Amino acid sequence: MARPGGRSARVQEAVHTAVRDLSAEVGRDALTVPLIAARAEVTPSTIYRRWGDLQALLSDVAVEHLRPEAPPEDRGDLESDLQAWAEQFLDEMASPAGRAYIRDALLGDPDGSNAGRCSAYAAEQVDVILTRATDRGEPGPNVETVLDHVVAPMMYRILFRPGGHDSAYARQLVSGVLDAGRGDRQG
Amino acid sequence: MARPGGRSARVQEAVHTAVRDLSAEVGRDALTVPLIAARAEVTPSTIYRRWGDLQALLSDVAVEHLRPEAPPEDRGDLESDLQAWAEQFLDEMASPAGRAYIRDALLGDPDGSNAGRCSAYAAEQVDVILTRATDRGEPGPNVETVLDHVVAPMMYRILFRPGGHDSAYARQLVSGVLDAGRGDRQG
Repeated sequence: MARPGGRSARVQEAVHTAVRDLSAEVGRDALTVPLIAARAEVTPSTIYRRWGDLQALLSDVAVEHLRPEAPPEDRGDLESDLQAWAEQFLDEMASPAGRAYIRDALLGDPDGSNAGRCSAYAAEQVDVILTRATDRGEPGPNVETVLDHVVAPMMYRILFRPGGHDSAYARQLVSGVLDAGRGDRQG
Repeated sequence: MARPGGRSARVQEAVHTAVRDLSAEVGRDALTVPLIAARAEVTPSTIYRRWGDLQALLSDVAVEHLRPEAPPEDRGDLESDLQAWAEQFLDEMASPAGRAYIRDALLGDPDGSNAGRCSAYAAEQVDVILTRATDRGEPGPNVETVLDHVVAPMMYRILFRPGGHDSAYARQLVSGVLDAGRGDRQG
């Protein structure tokens, strides 16, 4: 709809920054569309037109927070790469800030597109790791298998179960999926 | 806090029924605490005192909807029992009503206790199936393995990914966890 870098991108940047700054200053629960609009120097109707409502805006901002900032670290082999990534993912997502973002991302998202962006970010990171392994000649699972058996169990625990969000759990899931691949190739 | 079957239980029943009936009559988005209180013949402050706010009440009602009504069907062997249960679980949870309940359950639930009830229901059903298998002398995985590798991937798809919510997917997850157990015993 809008040219990247044009007015649309500037509005998005200003509004996202206003949400982040105001969240830190007055707290999440005190945010309103007029308050955000004033800080971002846009009209409230600009926000309503573009995002629909406050919850949808917060969902969009949350997904931006969940976007990885860099490709996963290259530690030289598949198991180390995947374990380091899974441990960091669990650590970030299970933190109070991570939980709040996941919650916001899911909430103001009636068509599921923001939630879809979250899982696409995870899939992209996993794909980088698996492609590196393939380039090294290491056999490994496919992206779907890692989403189903490493990412999904971590997110299910974070959302639905108390406790058990430690590195040992992340490593166990990764070992499980790699062992299963060695015994019974899945990807 | 209150005796079962006493005033507290009657209030809960009346308020839950009011939410269900009004949701059908006027739609979810038109619900307000005063409207629900009037229908349930309680005061709004009774609702605020007990549930906190509308979202917390809707979360409680949603979890009640997600409570299984009967133990899983006994089809005579572990694989059939688990596949039938997983197919039905995915079918119900991925339906528009199921998604709305999961969403409500997660939302008005700052301490995670309602989400915890949802996963406890799934764990109880799986436990019934696995206990039956043990009684028949069939080896099988443990409850945690089924939660991680059958329930979690289904919920992750429902919440974060478009599509792929068909019976074949549920059956594939069940076969995967049983095959893994046969090759490399997990529970």
